[in-house]
Amino acid sequence: MDNFSFYNPTKVEFGKGKEQLIGAILSAHGIKKVLLTYGSERIKNDGLFASIAKSLNKEGIAFVECGGIVSNPVISKVREAILLAREQKVEAVLSVGGGSVLDSSKAIAAGTLYQGEVWDLFIGKGQIETALPVFAILTLAATGSEMNSGAVVTNEATKEKFAINSVHTFPKVSIVNPALMQTVSRDYLVYSAADIIAHSIEGYFTATVQPKIQSRLIESVITTVMETTNALLANPADYDARAEFAWAATLALNGITYAGTAGFSYPNHMIEHSLSALFNVPHGAGLSVVMPAWMKWYHGRNAAQFDRFAQQIFGLATAEQGIAALEKWFDKIGTPTRLSQLRITEADLPAILDNLRGNAQWFGLAETYTPEVLTEILKRAL
Amino acid sequence: MDNFSFYNPTKVEFGKGKEQLIGAILSAHGIKKVLLTYGSERIKNDGLFASIAKSLNKEGIAFVECGGIVSNPVISKVREAILLAREQKVEAVLSVGGGSVLDSSKAIAAGTLYQGEVWDLFIGKGQIETALPVFAILTLAATGSEMNSGAVVTNEATKEKFAINSVHTFPKVSIVNPALMQTVSRDYLVYSAADIIAHSIEGYFTATVQPKIQSRLIESVITTVMETTNALLANPADYDARAEFAWAATLALNGITYAGTAGFSYPNHMIEHSLSALFNVPHGAGLSVVMPAWMKWYHGRNAAQFDRFAQQIFGLATAEQGIAALEKWFDKIGTPTRLSQLRITEADLPAILDNLRGNAQWFGLAETYTPEVLTEILKRAL
Repeated sequence: MDNFSFYNPTKVEFGKGKEQLIGAILSAHGIKKVLLTYGSERIKNDGLFASIAKSLNKEGIAFVECGGIVSNPVISKVREAILLAREQKVEAVLSVGGGSVLDSSKAIAAGTLYQGEVWDLFIGKGQIETALPVFAILTLAATGSEMNSGAVVTNEATKEKFAINSVHTFPKVSIVNPALMQTVSRDYLVYSAADIIAHSIEGYFTATVQPKIQSRLIESVITTVMETTNALLANPADYDARAEFAWAATLALNGITYAGTAGFSYPNHMIEHSLSALFNVPHGAGLSVVMPAWMKWYHGRNAAQFDRFAQQIFGLATAEQGIAALEKWFDKIGTPTRLSQLRITEADLPAILDNLRGNAQWFGLAETYTPEVLTEILKRAL
Repeated sequence: MDNFSFYNPTKVEFGKGKEQLIGAILSAHGIKKVLLTYGSERIKNDGLFASIAKSLNKEGIAFVECGGIVSNPVISKVREAILLAREQKVEAVLSVGGGSVLDSSKAIAAGTLYQGEVWDLFIGKGQIETALPVFAILTLAATGSEMNSGAVVTNEATKEKFAINSVHTFPKVSIVNPALMQTVSRDYLVYSAADIIAHSIEGYFTATVQPKIQSRLIESVITTVMETTNALLANPADYDARAEFAWAATLALNGITYAGTAGFSYPNHMIEHSLSALFNVPHGAGLSVVMPAWMKWYHGRNAAQFDRFAQQIFGLATAEQGIAALEKWFDKIGTPTRLSQLRITEADLPAILDNLRGNAQWFGLAETYTPEVLTEILKRAL
């Protein structure tokens, strides 16, 4: 087990009706004016916006709306929001949405108090030394952003999809009400399942130090995601399945499962980030395409752990059987497993490889993931 | 899944050599003078004290020694330390030891800033509204106190073993270096294993709402504790086993495994607290006696979960087989499973039952755990 520091100060308020606490929570933090970030106008039709506005009004908290944040969120929108946050002198950012809104909100929170250009924080040219406090009401469980300090944003100009990470960008409080997620589309449910599984397996398979207790925790998360996805496809109104799915998403990336591991990397995310940066595919859909292909290429490098995966998750004997079973399950739930399903063809490979060059540098994986290796993996995904 | 709030701001610094950071950590928190609490003088012989003193001196941090804290720590010692802390105007408490020292330190930290009598905080006559910051260097992994806000202390005068719990008593930073635990005696290792398993099963078996993901996490903890205990009995110098054991101890009671559960109680701890309050038996030794007896009495009330336990932990078919296997494992590792091994006989039962009256009230279990029920459980443990 490797040395580690674990610190996660985010308070999670989990369960039915918890969004009604938002006014009182902000008030307890001394906040009088927030930037309310969100994606589509859907939240205004389903009653969520009204419920939040009521809670804020009750506590006399002013809010400035900043809607229109898209999936695979973009830095131009973050810049626009930073100007608004400064102009309106907001004291905090309240994110209402899924991981894209929350990641953007973290970038806005850091960028508002940063004197330079916000993208510099993503490329290591600037340091996050402070940030506005971030509060979240989550409407989609997938990215784990509700209980970590990371944020992934795409620079449309450079087609780079990079991340920030700082002790200052943990949400102060994240409200996770699984009932708010019952209207998530079937597609986004299965993409989210793939995303959570990707968060779980990256470290699990690539770490050079992977304590067994951590493997067990990760297997608990994966088993839960598969079981609850099946349950939700059968009955989207199954609250308990929705809740366990959401908690699994949080656990997959709140740091607990990574404690004491070492030498891990994020090759699946690296490859997927190029797909979504170039073709704007849903992140989870890109991941379910990349994972089986990567696993087929990689498994001989960590054979014992792939055997373990097959046994613990599927009760199967060999690595190959485990990989095939995961791919089959992705097919069954309806998340893509082939680039063709994302309308990406062999003709697109040069552009992907070109984009992956900078990506591989950023992820620190350029040495292993040469254009030849990446071609081999991508061809398996065609 | 029940609604829950999860908040755990303790930073865990885990791994080899981490105790050398203590001076820098305290300095970063602006601390200039600490009360250094510990148990036996052993820390002065094995180099730990010298290492800590060096780290504190380097940062110019003064420390006031407060040694002699015993297992099953007592309120008289806490009172004495509070007077010292006030007189010396310390700004923080630095706990060097296991759960007994750390629990005492939390009580000292709260009591120093509380105007009234410290025991009032344990019996609900007073509220913890602030506390000195607590820092910990852990030398025994068992109680989970390093990453939670609870503290259990015995009042020798009234023979009550009660607890406090407050958002103000989370350690700011806990240093967990498994290498410091390699000198833990064989007895205390196996008692600690029983303690961690007790923390794991109380909620697992008694909760009226027990999400499957949480059962899986708990099973991961129990499996790890059993596996690493076996490994450590064979080779006490196995660092990785020591480390996984320690992390399992932390996870068992840091709140993660309890999130979303409801209706749980601590009957095994309730019964054991009377044993250690009256007979000063090691907490874990008391628990390994109580658990099998309680499980034999209780299992019909939650048959499905006991079947699950048998299957997941031991690969066995029935609840009875699972309970027998756990008892057999306790016997194998050498932690007691009978009151007679603690030199407690049938003649002592009236005194235990008498003590349990107040205890059952405090634990909110008086209705279910009548003297008749408790007699039945205790007789199974003779």
